[in-house]
Amino acid sequence: MRERIEDFLDRTERVQLLAAPTPLHALSGFSEYKDVQAYIKRDDMTGLGPGGNKVRSLEYILGEAVSIGCKKILAAGPVQSNLCTLTAAACARLGLECELVHNGEEPEKKEGNLLLNGLLGTVSHFLGSCDSSERNAYTEELAASYEKAGIPSYVVRNGATTGRGALGYTAAVREMKRQCEEMQIHNMTIFAPGGNGGVAAGLIYGNEMLGRPFRIVIISVEDDRDTLIRHIEKTIHETEKITGITMEAAVEETAEISDLYRGAGWGMDTRESKEEILRFSRQEGIFIENIYNSKVVVGMKDWIRKGKAKGAVCYLHTGGFGSLFAQY
Amino acid sequence: MRERIEDFLDRTERVQLLAAPTPLHALSGFSEYKDVQAYIKRDDMTGLGPGGNKVRSLEYILGEAVSIGCKKILAAGPVQSNLCTLTAAACARLGLECELVHNGEEPEKKEGNLLLNGLLGTVSHFLGSCDSSERNAYTEELAASYEKAGIPSYVVRNGATTGRGALGYTAAVREMKRQCEEMQIHNMTIFAPGGNGGVAAGLIYGNEMLGRPFRIVIISVEDDRDTLIRHIEKTIHETEKITGITMEAAVEETAEISDLYRGAGWGMDTRESKEEILRFSRQEGIFIENIYNSKVVVGMKDWIRKGKAKGAVCYLHTGGFGSLFAQY
Ligand SMILES: Cc1ncc(COP(=O)(O)O)c(C=O)c1O
Ligand SMILES: Cc1ncc(COP(=O)(O)O)c(C=O)c1O
Repeated sequence: MRERIEDFLDRTERVQLLAAPTPLHALSGFSEYKDVQAYIKRDDMTGLGPGGNKVRSLEYILGEAVSIGCKKILAAGPVQSNLCTLTAAACARLGLECELVHNGEEPEKKEGNLLLNGLLGTVSHFLGSCDSSERNAYTEELAASYEKAGIPSYVVRNGATTGRGALGYTAAVREMKRQCEEMQIHNMTIFAPGGNGGVAAGLIYGNEMLGRPFRIVIISVEDDRDTLIRHIEKTIHETEKITGITMEAAVEETAEISDLYRGAGWGMDTRESKEEILRFSRQEGIFIENIYNSKVVVGMKDWIRKGKAKGAVCYLHTGGFGSLFAQY
Repeated sequence: MRERIEDFLDRTERVQLLAAPTPLHALSGFSEYKDVQAYIKRDDMTGLGPGGNKVRSLEYILGEAVSIGCKKILAAGPVQSNLCTLTAAACARLGLECELVHNGEEPEKKEGNLLLNGLLGTVSHFLGSCDSSERNAYTEELAASYEKAGIPSYVVRNGATTGRGALGYTAAVREMKRQCEEMQIHNMTIFAPGGNGGVAAGLIYGNEMLGRPFRIVIISVEDDRDTLIRHIEKTIHETEKITGITMEAAVEETAEISDLYRGAGWGMDTRESKEEILRFSRQEGIFIENIYNSKVVVGMKDWIRKGKAKGAVCYLHTGGFGSLFAQY
């Protein structure tokens, strides 16, 4: 039986950026946990630029931009923003112009994602230290000025956490469902990060639309639980308006959402998350980074240790490899 | 009909490291070349550490090490060696101890692959400036001293370009042959780098063993043509001894080998290769690096422009993403 959401995903505007499916494979460092088969979903290997989750969102966001004839794409974020670098890489492949707006100073030595943006030749605006709402306002003004000059422009808003962006992880649920069928993995619990909540919204909505193949656990890396839930709900409502297909259940009934591992919030390491970066790479030979990855692994391992997750568990690696080189 | 080489590949000692198959997909920046369908084989996405070709060699090399009970693995290379980082990552995943030996000073700020080695917690020996034969001698002595102390040790020699290492790209030919059958790509020309010649040896040997599905072009990034051919022949002879299956044709009859794009040799940029790094990332949204990647793309484009390659052409991206962060 084909689900209605699949028909929507197949017909909506989309550009192809992803090297799909990304690998789903076993982790090797979890043998001490007897009741658990641990997997990793390699969305660090999406195949564009340095890889990462935002490639999935950009397929649907830039699909819209292209369909309405926009040639100039604007994205905003902190200087090491993964979304900015991936937007620049996507525009390179698609032949679109890209401009980036950063809240932060232009450093003398370009490291990590900034080094990659330089290779991509992207025009970057450094606003100096200001908050994200100032940065976003500047971005909108810039877009408006291009529009006025006759250049159709498109802003990738809210770090790609939008109703269209969430379709990326709705499609990812379909992809993972197929992989689990092929690999005969049953009742898998997926651990994923919650920043702005776009990955979470897509996963939760997709999981509902496709008959709840998975149990979803979202580990906040930024906000308190209530704030994150509100963000996720808002994005799911936007997605529902786009697809015309409403999700019946409430977010809190369909996913478990924890803010226990975020420490002081976005970009602020905890003792455990700092240790986990080293422990994970030394067990798996796979790198994770500080802002979006390590806290999720800490949360997943804590759930396993406490017996809250059993059987097949899966860490959704959302990438950020470019920024790692500026984190040390 | 199953080839004899496939039986050998399936029964010889091997550890699983690769997220296989790596993607094979179209490139988007070649539309100006009318007679050409351009592809890329994403061996930058082998799924271990920062990715790259050496993961394939290490499957067969460390397979042997594990099968003879070695717990301590040694590898040697310059400070930004991709092989060293990938050996460290592989050992992490397999639960083996790893030590690295570098000819070069220990820099104060660890960049690129050195930063990754630090995360992996690998013991690294910095010998200061010396040549590779001195470095290799030191590595052998170190291994001998461990052996003497009762610790079975294994040296990954010659940057993994050995008879066993070449089996990695023999297996890669099988993988690509299957992908091309599925994707209905016919008579594909593969452009690959020649450094020590291990990738080349594996490709050429595998291509002969599997009925010449591909045309192979090797672009030297290091030595003159005759020297590179001798390296390749030597490695193929080692492989033949291991498999017991001899290749009838001579290397020069079965592959085209060019030293026209190497400039002043290993690690020395040419004007074209420096430009190509930027051009390629700005067309494809995929990063290439200076030492092993860009000269091959320059060579491939030159062959296409001159009409020496038509139809399906494929750039074999061998990775090196970690080192890119220390190249700028
Ligand atoms: C690597 C990485 N992981 C996770 C996230 C979080 O995604 P979301 O904002 O959709 O919650 C981001 C967002 O920037 C990211 O870059
Ligand atoms: C990224 C990369 N590409 C290509 C090569 C060349 O491989 P070979 O030495 O087998 O010719 C190497 C070897 O170090 C490498 O690291």
